[in-house]
Amino acid sequence: MKTIRASISGFGAVGQGVVEVLLKKEKHLKNLGLDIRVVSISDSKGSEINTEGIDLSSALTRKREKGTVALDNTSSLEIIKSIDHDLVIETTSTDIETGGIGLQNMMSAFDNGRDVVTSNKGPIALKYNELIEASRKSGSKFRFEATVGGAMPIINLIKNVLAGNDVISVEGILNGTCNYILTRMMEENAPYEQMLAESQELGIAETDPSYDVDGIDSACKLVILANTVFGLCFTYRDVDVTGISKITPESLILAQNNGYVIKLIGEVKEDLIRVAPRLVPEDSPLAVGGTLNVASIQTDLSGTVTVTGRGAGSIETASAILSDIISIYKN
Amino acid sequence: MKTIRASISGFGAVGQGVVEVLLKKEKHLKNLGLDIRVVSISDSKGSEINTEGIDLSSALTRKREKGTVALDNTSSLEIIKSIDHDLVIETTSTDIETGGIGLQNMMSAFDNGRDVVTSNKGPIALKYNELIEASRKSGSKFRFEATVGGAMPIINLIKNVLAGNDVISVEGILNGTCNYILTRMMEENAPYEQMLAESQELGIAETDPSYDVDGIDSACKLVILANTVFGLCFTYRDVDVTGISKITPESLILAQNNGYVIKLIGEVKEDLIRVAPRLVPEDSPLAVGGTLNVASIQTDLSGTVTVTGRGAGSIETASAILSDIISIYKN
Repeated sequence: MKTIRASISGFGAVGQGVVEVLLKKEKHLKNLGLDIRVVSISDSKGSEINTEGIDLSSALTRKREKGTVALDNTSSLEIIKSIDHDLVIETTSTDIETGGIGLQNMMSAFDNGRDVVTSNKGPIALKYNELIEASRKSGSKFRFEATVGGAMPIINLIKNVLAGNDVISVEGILNGTCNYILTRMMEENAPYEQMLAESQELGIAETDPSYDVDGIDSACKLVILANTVFGLCFTYRDVDVTGISKITPESLILAQNNGYVIKLIGEVKEDLIRVAPRLVPEDSPLAVGGTLNVASIQTDLSGTVTVTGRGAGSIETASAILSDIISIYKN
Repeated sequence: MKTIRASISGFGAVGQGVVEVLLKKEKHLKNLGLDIRVVSISDSKGSEINTEGIDLSSALTRKREKGTVALDNTSSLEIIKSIDHDLVIETTSTDIETGGIGLQNMMSAFDNGRDVVTSNKGPIALKYNELIEASRKSGSKFRFEATVGGAMPIINLIKNVLAGNDVISVEGILNGTCNYILTRMMEENAPYEQMLAESQELGIAETDPSYDVDGIDSACKLVILANTVFGLCFTYRDVDVTGISKITPESLILAQNNGYVIKLIGEVKEDLIRVAPRLVPEDSPLAVGGTLNVASIQTDLSGTVTVTGRGAGSIETASAILSDIISIYKN
């Protein structure tokens, strides 16, 4: 049995999802020879620390009852610097302007020789090269499948499963909220504003939906894909982005009458990195509805491989984090 | 640079595809730190052996001009037993009655501590447990992504990329020939026999098509999936199989008028392992046309993940073999 001592930075929906998944999968992990011991959990108010291993159920209950897991005011960054552990699970919320505390946590983790698994897009969409360089320098592992497409596996699929191929292009639907709004506008012949309101009521869109509907979230994910797959060093500001707010139900119906759907497609190839609404043939593998995400990977040897899955959800995102953890430590 | 000494057993379409891919990807492999040196290539007439590394272009040319690569009559089995090398690339043709020479080659490879990467379904659909046991005993690696779905990645996707999940069920289209015939029958409102003949003319179906159209090929692939994913020990004879030869264009049109397509679906879950024609909703991710393969993996944490790709083709299958080789030896 291999014991992995982990800290969890950020205890919102994804961080709590990670704890739920660790509880649910304890036996599965033991069968794989892995004993994941959480030595600290931090949120914005402070931390619980127990170098022997935190009682995860109690931590979850306390967070839900009191709104915080904190038992003292130690920050995640102080823990990463001072407490002995192997792995930083970084699930603080995304800051795409500066990279925020997530970026500091990751850099500090590498400085201290710790591995990082994260769902936090901001730091990677802003500072991919610096992070990769820091992880290489310290010999740390760095995995971020959960940053793109939630439970839709794409990064590890390309890097490992399709390792014999060169990738020519990747295109896909990388934001479930936009996909939901467009799908519903077509189904109901209803205007954008109405379906945005519906998706906000259902908790699919945020109160401030601009990060999703203006295409910024898709652009961040596309940059992460582009940099990992093609070894590039884009930041999300390099992406040519158009959102979905100008799309009318009339244009969706017109497309439908001609055998097409309109989808917000992120696309990267040699000389192009773009997020924009595009006409997609109804029978294309990219024409998936609802909140699904999808990506088509065009390769030199294997032709086109398409993968579809749930793009969001705390348990789904946590499952990608768990798979990354297993990939680092199994054998 | 890590040098891997490999033998290639079987030099038909897939074996030749492997050599083409090794030639095409030499630089890609060197960039990954891998120098794959082929020390022997065998076909049914004999072998070329060169412990310093065969000239792959000449071997390919000789095979295509003379119909054989053989320079002497040494068999692949004798080479596996007697010549020092790390990896057996097993691409002999499938024998689903006895496992054939492929089974002997794999068992002998493990006996001699060599790793095996294969596209040969027969041995694995018949003797999965024995092969896994033998590979474990000798500490050999054993990879067989290419046996299921050609360039559609499914085994490594489930075992590695989705490692945090328990799989509840897998269902999909595992045979491109059947999918082509059914797709064309619907498009042309034409009977089975006519579209079988068309697919034979195009080289999509074999002269004796029964292995494909009776569902045996799908059953073999399903058994390999079931055993790998669920740790079961089925053989293909345990599968409840119905083929496509009784399907009429009328039933396809009737289905279409109700929003469905008919597909030959392989399906495995706790208490069921079956290949049979099934009604699939037109907007289901499983409703892919032409020769494509598709598989939907239902998981406990990630929901349903669907993957689509080319199910056949020598380069596509060779690409899966190459990715398996990289996964064994990289780092």
